[in-house]
Amino acid sequence: MNPNKKKIKVLQYGFGPIGQETVRAVLKKEGLELIGVVDISPKLVGKDVGEILGEKRLGISVKQSLAEALNGQKADIALHTTTSFVKSVKPQLEELIRAGINVVSSTEELLIPHLQSPGEAKEIDELAKAYNVTILGTGVNPGFVMDTLPLFLSSTCLDVKKIEARREVDAGTRRLPLQKKVGAGLDVDDFKKLAKEKKLGHIGLIESIALIAEGLGWKLDDIQESVEPVVADKNYKTKYLEVQKGQAAGLKHVAKGFKNKEELIHLDLRMYVGAKEPYDYIHIIGTPEIKCKFEGGIAGDQATVASLINSIPRVLKASPGLVTMYKLPVPYALINANVL
Amino acid sequence: MNPNKKKIKVLQYGFGPIGQETVRAVLKKEGLELIGVVDISPKLVGKDVGEILGEKRLGISVKQSLAEALNGQKADIALHTTTSFVKSVKPQLEELIRAGINVVSSTEELLIPHLQSPGEAKEIDELAKAYNVTILGTGVNPGFVMDTLPLFLSSTCLDVKKIEARREVDAGTRRLPLQKKVGAGLDVDDFKKLAKEKKLGHIGLIESIALIAEGLGWKLDDIQESVEPVVADKNYKTKYLEVQKGQAAGLKHVAKGFKNKEELIHLDLRMYVGAKEPYDYIHIIGTPEIKCKFEGGIAGDQATVASLINSIPRVLKASPGLVTMYKLPVPYALINANVL
Repeated sequence: MNPNKKKIKVLQYGFGPIGQETVRAVLKKEGLELIGVVDISPKLVGKDVGEILGEKRLGISVKQSLAEALNGQKADIALHTTTSFVKSVKPQLEELIRAGINVVSSTEELLIPHLQSPGEAKEIDELAKAYNVTILGTGVNPGFVMDTLPLFLSSTCLDVKKIEARREVDAGTRRLPLQKKVGAGLDVDDFKKLAKEKKLGHIGLIESIALIAEGLGWKLDDIQESVEPVVADKNYKTKYLEVQKGQAAGLKHVAKGFKNKEELIHLDLRMYVGAKEPYDYIHIIGTPEIKCKFEGGIAGDQATVASLINSIPRVLKASPGLVTMYKLPVPYALINANVL
Repeated sequence: MNPNKKKIKVLQYGFGPIGQETVRAVLKKEGLELIGVVDISPKLVGKDVGEILGEKRLGISVKQSLAEALNGQKADIALHTTTSFVKSVKPQLEELIRAGINVVSSTEELLIPHLQSPGEAKEIDELAKAYNVTILGTGVNPGFVMDTLPLFLSSTCLDVKKIEARREVDAGTRRLPLQKKVGAGLDVDDFKKLAKEKKLGHIGLIESIALIAEGLGWKLDDIQESVEPVVADKNYKTKYLEVQKGQAAGLKHVAKGFKNKEELIHLDLRMYVGAKEPYDYIHIIGTPEIKCKFEGGIAGDQATVASLINSIPRVLKASPGLVTMYKLPVPYALINANVL
């Protein structure tokens, strides 16, 4: 469209399954240019990015440090896909900020980082402002289906009494880390033990509750959550693992937000191998009542990658600092970054 | 919550059925204060607003001019609900702008005013910037269901091939002007004649197409539309009128957006008396595919009023000039304007 227009230079930070899918999408998107990839895995460092993806050589190899990946180049945006927790990604974000790079991150807690890590959130925000860059945490869940979407739908309501969201995902079609994260193939007792130790469960559900509550101005006084196994009704075999009948096929994670003992937000997430009819369902009890069902659900990994890439234009235009999905302009598909 | 906080002063401009419902909602919303109502109808001028609504006297009467309604007061925002066309509302918007009042309007064409009236849109935009006020056109349709919503949902897509939206509305539950607008109770021949003269049909469908296309960067080369009657399968009687079997019960209005003869956007709106299962359905043919159904539909008049009121915070914070739904921050319900 506009051959003279400069492409948006993208750095990929984290090259696990989601990072790899993200790069695959960046390579296909007009107007985006991949300039480097960072990952610390010894299995990846030094290898050509294209070859890791099973595509043609790109002449860009995975580097274990940001400085090596940049190699003197300037990136406009980093797509950051490493871990789930603000405290563990803080040093990574700080080095990106100091390099003057805006960040879109899939770190679940970064959706609303002051919930779990207010001190770290404040430091990241201040550093980002000092370096004039913008940091956004997003994704499909958290980031969209169970938080930004119900908030968005509430814009047609005169009042809202309660928000419910249910999401049922067939973990059997997803990446290995997700299948493990939901406990697929564990004995039920082991599942319960791990769940009690908070080693199983979806990261981000209480972030979704907090985001909805913050948007609507609901000052919750309690958030409760529970993680239980969904027990396999027969044997299942995925691309990566096997689940025997009677073992955990995955999890049911429920989180509830209360004010004065009244439940205002109810999120019910089921991710398990063998889910027959995946869907997303949003129910707003208000005026008018809203009932919205996504047949087949909003497919996880593709949608997560899309959420990251489609956030690029809004992050590039946003004020510096840590920003939040629902305070940015309405998100939509970035079809061609050349038109930005 | 914050008794010292100043309320947002709201002026209602246009006091037909939608304007009346809007005021009803403003009066219930904490943090909003109605300061005046403008309407030119001789049936309304001089009457107490509360009494017209069938509620207690408010001590605010309907005035036929803005100056009388303001009576020296300053309004923060006008909720503008008069007619559908940019050319006819331009003088109204200009007097609001010159009074320094931000505007949220239900004028359908104002969703994307440069589509039909580029000259007028430019003048309104420039005047609004000169007076440092913001003007937004919104509503549920156009403004949400068939444009901003599909754009928003596309944010989870890596690519988009086509967008389809279907909306089926039971006109029998709606206000009289809407029942008339859809041709309910007309003989089919009369319907077809009026449709041919463009005197029947939904205003805003091509605006919805243009909004989606603009957001996605699709340069359409053709927009086609057709309006046909939905014929009554039996006799119907609404609160306002009667429809005989064989007469028009309402309309089916279809609009299509093309690029290089390929249909990229397809909107199908059916509004008729006797629709048994109203719904909204959004289908994005892309990666991933999105299928989203609103059981019962997003109820028209309440949702329209909600869209207006819930836009207030974003319009108050937006840059001056004519602004567009999808370029503003994500909309959501304004539960309590005191927290703004």
